[in-house]
Order: sequence, then C-alpha cells, then structure tokens
Amino acid sequence: MNSRPNPDLPTTPAAAPNPLETEGQPGAVELRVHRHRGGTVETLADHVGQEWPVALVFNGISHAVMMCTPRDLEAFAVGFAISEGIVGRNADIQDIEVFWYAKPDSADLPHAEVHLTVVQQAFVELKEKRRALAGRSGCGVCGIESIDLLDLEPETVPDTGFLGRLAPDAIARAARELPQHQALTKLTGGLHAAAWCDASGAILRAFEDVGRHNALDKLIGQLVIERADTQQGFVFLSSRASYELVRKAARVGIPMVATISAPSTLAIAIAKRAGLRLVSFCRESGYVDYDTASNAVPDAGQAT
Amino acid sequence: MNSRPNPDLPTTPAAAPNPLETEGQPGAVELRVHRHRGGTVETLADHVGQEWPVALVFNGISHAVMMCTPRDLEAFAVGFAISEGIVGRNADIQDIEVFWYAKPDSADLPHAEVHLTVVQQAFVELKEKRRALAGRSGCGVCGIESIDLLDLEPETVPDTGFLGRLAPDAIARAARELPQHQALTKLTGGLHAAAWCDASGAILRAFEDVGRHNALDKLIGQLVIERADTQQGFVFLSSRASYELVRKAARVGIPMVATISAPSTLAIAIAKRAGLRLVSFCRESGYVDYDTASNAVPDAGQAT
Repeated sequence: MNSRPNPDLPTTPAAAPNPLETEGQPGAVELRVHRHRGGTVETLADHVGQEWPVALVFNGISHAVMMCTPRDLEAFAVGFAISEGIVGRNADIQDIEVFWYAKPDSADLPHAEVHLTVVQQAFVELKEKRRALAGRSGCGVCGIESIDLLDLEPETVPDTGFLGRLAPDAIARAARELPQHQALTKLTGGLHAAAWCDASGAILRAFEDVGRHNALDKLIGQLVIERADTQQGFVFLSSRASYELVRKAARVGIPMVATISAPSTLAIAIAKRAGLRLVSFCRESGYVDYDTASNAVPDAGQAT
Repeated sequence: MNSRPNPDLPTTPAAAPNPLETEGQPGAVELRVHRHRGGTVETLADHVGQEWPVALVFNGISHAVMMCTPRDLEAFAVGFAISEGIVGRNADIQDIEVFWYAKPDSADLPHAEVHLTVVQQAFVELKEKRRALAGRSGCGVCGIESIDLLDLEPETVPDTGFLGRLAPDAIARAARELPQHQALTKLTGGLHAAAWCDASGAILRAFEDVGRHNALDKLIGQLVIERADTQQGFVFLSSRASYELVRKAARVGIPMVATISAPSTLAIAIAKRAGLRLVSFCRESGYVDYDTASNAVPDAGQAT
C-alpha cells in the first residue's frame, strides 16, 4: 500500500515497488524455455514481460480491469483517470493505494488492485455515466457498447508555439535515444515504451508496459503527478498510432505524437480534429508527417 | 447488407465487400503524406490501414464497439461471438447483416454495424450476463470491470495427437510464407495478421486487421463458418502473445499458437492451464517453446 503524496507538496514520487518482487527487474520474470535454432534445442532461463490483471477501483467501486505490467501502478492509475476523463486534474484524486495479490506456489494468478479516492463531484459524474449506460459492454473501445457513446470529438490542442520551437533533429534524436530507456524490452523483447521528450528531442521520462495504451497512461500520470506542462513536449511511442493513443494525448493537450510504426486512418482523423501533429515511421533517418496539425511547420526537420 | 449463408449448406463465403469502397484494396486508403528523409521532404500518396469503429449488435442490442479494419466483418462477428463465448457454435447464429455508414465529404467518421440474430437461449444468457453486472466497465479486458469477473480458467484443449503430427519444419514454413498473405501490411506497414496452418506449416487462411485480436477473431470466424476442424491446425500470428489471444484460441480448441514476437507471462500461464502449446519469436531459423503443453513433443523441429 502506498499513499499518494500530498498534492500540495512538490512531488517526485518514486515508482511504487511491488513488495512481492523478490529479485530481478520488476516487470519481467525468468522462466525456463527451450530455444530451437538450426536443428538444435537449448534449454535456458529467459526473461518474459509480466502481464497482470490490474483492477482500477474508484471510491470502492471496481471500474475496469486492464492487462498491465505491474510497476509504476500509481502513475498508471493517475494517467488512466485523467486520460479517460474520469477526473479533470490530479488534485481531484485524494488518495491512491496499491494492493498486490500474489502468492508464491499458489494456483491463483497474481493480480493487483489500485484503489483511488476521487473528489465527490468526479465520483458522482462517474456513477451517473455508469448508470446512463444500461448493462455492460463485452469488449472494445474503453468498454463502449454503442457507436453513439464513442468519443470522436477530441479536445483541441492549444497552440502554444511548441511545434515551431521543435529542433529540426528532435524526432531523430528521440528515435536514437529511446532504446536506452527500454530496459524491459531489452530483457524480454516484448514491451512497448512511451517517452516524454522536450523540444530538442531529449527523452525526459519513459515507461514500459505490455500494453501501449498502458505505457502512455503511465507517462501521462507521471507528468501530471510532477505537474509537468503537457503542452510543452511531445510523446514518442515504440508502437503504431491508433485511435486510443491520439485520443489520450489530446485529452491533456500534448501537441505532438511520434510513433515508430504506422498510424491508422482513425488516428490521423482524430489528430486532425484535435490539431495534434502526428508523425509516424519515426527513425533516426526520417519520418512521415500526416498533415494533421494546421500549426505544424510542414518542413520541420528539413535542415539537419 | 449481407445475409449469412444458410448453415445447412456447404459454405465458402467470400469476404463481404464494403459497398462504399470505390477503389483500391479494401482495408487501406491512400492519403497525402510528407516523407522526411535525410534533410529532404517528399510529398506523396501513401497507404494507411483503416481503423473503423465497428459495433456488434446482438438481437437489436448493441453489445460492443471494436476498433477494426472494415473487411471480413461477417467472419469477424462470428469469431467474436464464438471466442467471447456469446454463442457456442455457428448454428446458434441465425442471421448476420452488415451495415456501412460512410459518406464521402461528410464530417461524420465512417463506421459499421454488424447485426447478429442469435438463438433465444444465447440471447437470454447474454442478457442475464449483462444484467448481473451492474453499471458498465470503463475499459480493459473485454469490458470486465472487476478481477472476480475475469476468466482465467480456459477450456482444456483436447489432445487429438496434432502436435505429434506436426512437421519438424512447420513453424519455419509458416514464418516463411506469412508475408505472402500480408497484402495490407505490405501496403501500409501497419496491420497484424492471423493465419491458420496445417501440420506441414502450409498457410490455409489468413486475415489482417489493425487489431491483433480482431485478426484472430476473423480467422476463427471463417474457420467456424467453413466448419473447419479447429483442433487440427495451428494459428500463426504476426504479433506478440498476450492473454486474450491464447484465451480465444483455447475457446475453440486450437492446439498451438505461434507468434512472431514475445509472449507475456499471462499468455504462458493461460496456455499452460489450457494445455495449449505456445511458441514465440518464430522465425524461419528457429523459435522459443514455453513448455505449456504437456502433450507437446519438446524437440519437435529438432531435425530439419
């Protein structure tokens, strides 16, 4: 259990440690595997990225279960609450406790619960939203069960001039530096990373998770906890760009999302509606711009 | 609108075409992009994978919205209904209609609805499940809102001897042949593929989607529509292996899941519980086996 720091104090909280981790890098475990290669089989220990069910509980009511890498869960919960619009700001979260459920040699699979206490107004709104939607959704976009309930109208990202201040080689620099922040991916070969970069492309914060949206929620949560200005930087993601990632970034006014892999049509459409600059296929050698931000400098990065 | 073929007839239905697609490969569109490379900017048309909200409506009640590539939607809906346990078999689905909503030059984003008519018993059970869960889930694993509701007990995959019949080079062959079935990925650089392979590793069916779980649902749906024996083949996925993919495969008794990228701890745990063989990092040159199937031949693939 870890109480969240008082929001009235300067905060640079460390990631909440999992008290049940006994050794190694939290977020990955060692398992015995058989590696088949060129006609030979080698049995060895290899690292695998942890995927745990993590329940998010608001004022005692379990709201969602995410499949998540169990570290940085406080940042994750804050980011989820903000990026899903459950609370408007960090000060609306009064307390956070993380509960770990994992027994060595137990048949039960390990899981965690994050209990958030939010201000009454946010909780009333959450309860009303839940009541308005009869029944439950089976699967899909944030549990949305009909098209009418889908949020395709993102907030407009304010033009603070950040894109004009972006260094020509900022994307190349972030692409070059990201692997240094992917310790779990290096171990396991299979996690996503979300990084926060300044106008020079320097990576200031990075989080890893089996889910790309979880990695982004952890990043957004940490920025919000630290009261960083989310309008003065960009997000660099190891993944593709899909609807949910752009939607979450727009919610906190992030002016640019850069991804290593391809975007979807809906990611581009939502970025355009938000006025958020979306660039994909980002490498040290180049990137592709989708013309989504009217305030973007179209040839930024031209002179290198 | 496309009615599903009579289940009493032999069926090899073609993928339902999107009547609103006017040109090009359904599933991708051409957009104008700016490619930045080595200090130059080139403006060109490039293909982007389509991501549409697709609502799944059971007997008139909207149940879920998935972000999906809008083709093969009938197979997708059948696969979702089966792999999520809404119906037990294809014969429980009496009718399927696909509705497309997309207007050129409209401000509305395109979307689709798939209306399924399922037998009364399945619908009653779905309604009861929905009623039992007060409120709605915000996000996460198939809309599950608390850990108690999470299904971590997969069906045991029957041992039909398929793994013993697997050719030593089956995984290598599937890995080598998959790119030939990834037309959309070749165009866009950004979709996932799910393929169905026989014991020799030959790819018999393949589907692409922006979502890896959607690609698998399309594949499972098509197999079910064609009345293929899902216990006599394996799934080869372009993605990582996570909980949901193994859970869906176990539901229809698929004996092996092979993925190009890494597995998560929960994918391995669920595969072990189901007795389903999970192999990952599958390349033409080798793969990693996680010892999840007690009936697997541990050194299959040794002699090549």
